Amino acid sequence: MRIIVTGGAGFIGSHLCDRLVEEGHSVVAVDDLSLGRTENLAHLAGRADFRFEEVSILDPAFDTLVGEVDFDAVFHMAANSDIQAGSRDRRVDLDRTFLTTWHVCESMARHGVRQLVFASTSAIYGDVPEATHENHGPLIPISFYGAAKLAGEAYCSAYAHRHDIRTWVYRFPNVVGSRATHGVILDFVEKLEKDGSVLDVLGDGTQEKPYLYVHDLLDAMLLGWDRVVPAPLEVFNIGPESATRVRSIAEAVVAAMGLRGEVEIRYGDEPRGWPGDVPRFAYDLGKIHALGWKAANTSDEAMRRAVKDVLAERSAA
Amino acid sequence: MRIIVTGGAGFIGSHLCDRLVEEGHSVVAVDDLSLGRTENLAHLAGRADFRFEEVSILDPAFDTLVGEVDFDAVFHMAANSDIQAGSRDRRVDLDRTFLTTWHVCESMARHGVRQLVFASTSAIYGDVPEATHENHGPLIPISFYGAAKLAGEAYCSAYAHRHDIRTWVYRFPNVVGSRATHGVILDFVEKLEKDGSVLDVLGDGTQEKPYLYVHDLLDAMLLGWDRVVPAPLEVFNIGPESATRVRSIAEAVVAAMGLRGEVEIRYGDEPRGWPGDVPRFAYDLGKIHALGWKAANTSDEAMRRAVKDVLAERSAA
Repeated sequence: MRIIVTGGAGFIGSHLCDRLVEEGHSVVAVDDLSLGRTENLAHLAGRADFRFEEVSILDPAFDTLVGEVDFDAVFHMAANSDIQAGSRDRRVDLDRTFLTTWHVCESMARHGVRQLVFASTSAIYGDVPEATHENHGPLIPISFYGAAKLAGEAYCSAYAHRHDIRTWVYRFPNVVGSRATHGVILDFVEKLEKDGSVLDVLGDGTQEKPYLYVHDLLDAMLLGWDRVVPAPLEVFNIGPESATRVRSIAEAVVAAMGLRGEVEIRYGDEPRGWPGDVPRFAYDLGKIHALGWKAANTSDEAMRRAVKDVLAERSAA
Repeated sequence: MRIIVTGGAGFIGSHLCDRLVEEGHSVVAVDDLSLGRTENLAHLAGRADFRFEEVSILDPAFDTLVGEVDFDAVFHMAANSDIQAGSRDRRVDLDRTFLTTWHVCESMARHGVRQLVFASTSAIYGDVPEATHENHGPLIPISFYGAAKLAGEAYCSAYAHRHDIRTWVYRFPNVVGSRATHGVILDFVEKLEKDGSVLDVLGDGTQEKPYLYVHDLLDAMLLGWDRVVPAPLEVFNIGPESATRVRSIAEAVVAAMGLRGEVEIRYGDEPRGWPGDVPRFAYDLGKIHALGWKAANTSDEAMRRAVKDVLAERSAA
């Protein structure tokens, strides 16, 4: 198939390009390089079945690109994936998370692209106590990132119904692995590289969330895409069944960097890491499990593998 | 209280201005007059507790106005309320229904306005078979109007949580009464005024929806606003317990116009009136009923009153 991957030079997007090319698809990765990095795609350069285009989805050039040949599918991974940045500047997620999605849908409708895979998020559920099923429970986001993704889902739904676009919506938890551009692991590593004697943790360390290894995520996405024919829209929660405390991540990073006993780990007073942070989260995974996918790595395993990946990547750079 | 009513010159907004002024509030009605009409507010002109401002919410002048004095609340009624127009031009609801909402929230956050009443819609539920409760069921809009309102709710939620804005979200059904700018009753009346021998009905006439009389709607909205303190966001379905078939509306309009026996009513073949139309709809009203509100008029009564109101208004003009 001919596939566009938006955010293709980013963390998850670049791993997705690897998988799609590996499975025999022809891929155009689109990225404005605001968070993505061409290094993430360097190993694909020169392949006949892969191309990278530096373009913003908000630019008319993106629409031109979508109309260039008969694409079969768009995997829309581009977003401002930095929830904290979206809290500091409320326009960031409006433009980069929501309006990108609107333009992707609009260009697909205009040029007749018939399959959309949309990277959504657990943040659309908000700060809810129980495990939430895809079709139940209120959707009350408490972050601008969550709001922008829910707004994106809303438009995916209307475009899916009105323009016969088969749409797979995957609600991601925290995803970890190499090529990450932000997130708790990278945050800790960078802080300790700067000052190996102290580690300031956002929040009191009791936040407990499911962390999913990026390769497990891609297994789930591609399985759903392969097995399910949306009519016209299907939503899937994706995650491990377990969760990991921020405190454990701090300790794992300190240990992996060989700094045990040398670092004072200082915690904040608040259970939330930052305004808009959802400190405790779980969701119902029955739908994706029923397809035959379960996360190969527990949340703790995913976190430990990701710590290794991130450190290996930095020592190689 | 000092209150801004957006869409204040429109159908529901102008009736709301009447009620708020009547209850002793000081009201600034904001409208860009794209659908609204100054005639709807003419009777309030010259009052010290009322002012009309012709301004678009998307214009920086709106933000200036919000910051002008310490407003206590915004009733955000402005939207492209014409679902069919939003189907013809997909940008209409993005700009006029969604982005207006984003700008209202943003200005409220910036200037510290602490109460928001948001006019949402049953269209956010999509084409669902069962009666939907506010907190259950998927939200899968099939129209761009529904998508834009759900996107608006998403942002209301994030702003409510992050900026301490108490937010009442009311999901409206079809609302009918005088000053309507579009809708099935007006559509039939206008067609029959043009040609009193034939009435072409969109859809096969079997569409069956709850119609709410505008004054009943305002009772519900103001009751919820008075009795409930959102923490920080509360969502209410509002509607009558009954529904009315489009076929009955056609017959009622023909009868009220004195054209019985003279008109050939011609129905379409499709159960949907237009792409994105939800032909059959019901929702769970337990939450608003628990506050002590039930629609004073059944759906049929609301429809018949509205037919009278619309005809009276046209003969007065």
